[in-house]
Amino acid sequence: MTIKVSDIGEKELVKYIISRASDITADDCAITSFDGENLISTCDMLIRSRHFPENMSFFDMGFKAVTVNVSDLAAMGAEPVGFLLSIAVPKDLPVDDFKQIISGVLSACSFYSIPLIGGDTNEASEIIISGTALGSTKKPLLKNTYEMDDLICITGDIGLAALGFNLNASDDIYTQRALKPKARITEGISIKNAGASSATDITDGLASELYEMKKDGFGFMIHEEMLGISDDYIHTADKLNLNYLDLALHTGEDFELVFTISKENLKNLDIDCKVIGRVTDSDKVEITLKNGSVRQIENRGYEHYAGGQ
Amino acid sequence: MTIKVSDIGEKELVKYIISRASDITADDCAITSFDGENLISTCDMLIRSRHFPENMSFFDMGFKAVTVNVSDLAAMGAEPVGFLLSIAVPKDLPVDDFKQIISGVLSACSFYSIPLIGGDTNEASEIIISGTALGSTKKPLLKNTYEMDDLICITGDIGLAALGFNLNASDDIYTQRALKPKARITEGISIKNAGASSATDITDGLASELYEMKKDGFGFMIHEEMLGISDDYIHTADKLNLNYLDLALHTGEDFELVFTISKENLKNLDIDCKVIGRVTDSDKVEITLKNGSVRQIENRGYEHYAGGQ
Repeated sequence: MTIKVSDIGEKELVKYIISRASDITADDCAITSFDGENLISTCDMLIRSRHFPENMSFFDMGFKAVTVNVSDLAAMGAEPVGFLLSIAVPKDLPVDDFKQIISGVLSACSFYSIPLIGGDTNEASEIIISGTALGSTKKPLLKNTYEMDDLICITGDIGLAALGFNLNASDDIYTQRALKPKARITEGISIKNAGASSATDITDGLASELYEMKKDGFGFMIHEEMLGISDDYIHTADKLNLNYLDLALHTGEDFELVFTISKENLKNLDIDCKVIGRVTDSDKVEITLKNGSVRQIENRGYEHYAGGQ
Repeated sequence: MTIKVSDIGEKELVKYIISRASDITADDCAITSFDGENLISTCDMLIRSRHFPENMSFFDMGFKAVTVNVSDLAAMGAEPVGFLLSIAVPKDLPVDDFKQIISGVLSACSFYSIPLIGGDTNEASEIIISGTALGSTKKPLLKNTYEMDDLICITGDIGLAALGFNLNASDDIYTQRALKPKARITEGISIKNAGASSATDITDGLASELYEMKKDGFGFMIHEEMLGISDDYIHTADKLNLNYLDLALHTGEDFELVFTISKENLKNLDIDCKVIGRVTDSDKVEITLKNGSVRQIENRGYEHYAGGQ
């Protein structure tokens, strides 16, 4: 029986590539020495049927294509340098819709102060937008360079987009976060300057990112109380028969940053963020629930292909 | 009646993007000042049903995805720095086929001395490979910086791949060039060092590239004799009822470089190449045929969407 990619899942495919390519930095972006500075680079492809909700406008598709890439720069604490756009569209796509996508891209480039420097157009059976974001920083923030007792923080609320994907609405905060996510590029630079010890962006859910960050001998203890999940969130999830904590931890598309910082450096932070937990020596990723009980967080997030879906 | 992208064609879409993005270098690659050096960057997306011949192996698909991007670096005379790979595959693709694609990518990266530094995997309805090539050079070669009387040269034979696409074969030179094209990265660096005045890579056909290079007040005179089209080529095209000159000039996928160089600098060249013509003041792109007659070369090459195809 031939093994298909759906049998092994996206993460295994990525691991395979990394195992064969010794120059790959296993972090949010590549780090390449360039004339004494660090060139930070990342690429991400968005496919309409998989990444854009049905009610997403063409403008927002273009904007998001920049956001997902800039978010990886943010996770490294990088300053933006330039953005390259590869876009494929069906031949019967109205030109006005194409122009709307480009408007979204350019609006995002302006929003993030990352100039559109190059690109490529193509024809495909559906809209596919592949972006490359380039940045620079003397001191890139990696995922796993925290130390024992470092505090774990997030730059904003999680789970909002996840709830938004389940609503049939348009104006509420959840749907807005689902359709118009924003990368935390200035926050990434701030936390790096404040002396954060590690960081990553939350795209597949906080749970998944914590397991990406985890290294042997270290663990994380998150406190549900400190996540600050609102009563409205719990209530709205409940009305939809969804488990609010599961939604918040395991879905993703938040584009907030989760980072670690020593107690000493915490005072250097000049941005709003929540302290949600601590680095421990438990070798587990755990959460203390509101009722006081401690549970291991499952290593589960959004994954392409997995399980033949 | 709604205007579709197929009504206006790929080149108009690209022009539209360039008209709205003031930071785009209208050349083969983007040129970005990075810490005093020039960061050269380009991206290109290949879609299986459109870019890979039916008899192309998975290995060769991966190899070509690197080639098309490195070719743009070559056109700028850039030294390779790194390659980023975004790959989407159908969920029922056998893992072994995926691994073959990656092998092709890595083999090409090694061949061109361009390390694979990052990437992304995805699911799509067909194989889509989007690559970004990064390079550097103090003095990038542009497309239109030639001067009157500069000689026009090419780094190798043109039209071979075009013929290969029409053959139902495997071992001949034409099919090999169609399935296994090579970017001229070392040649690009050599011609830059020799003092070439302009360059571009031949992907949509020599005719198309000459029109891309053309600027007001200048023209090009190409000499058919100097193209060195072989008797075997003419004979093979003829057996297929194809016009050999049309095939050679207007199809593309050659990945050779066409460049200009002054008579004085010609002697600095340390690579094999053919002098095929001269920059003139005719304001036309012309060819002197073997029989001595002069004809204007049509501005025609391979283009996505155009004419509702």
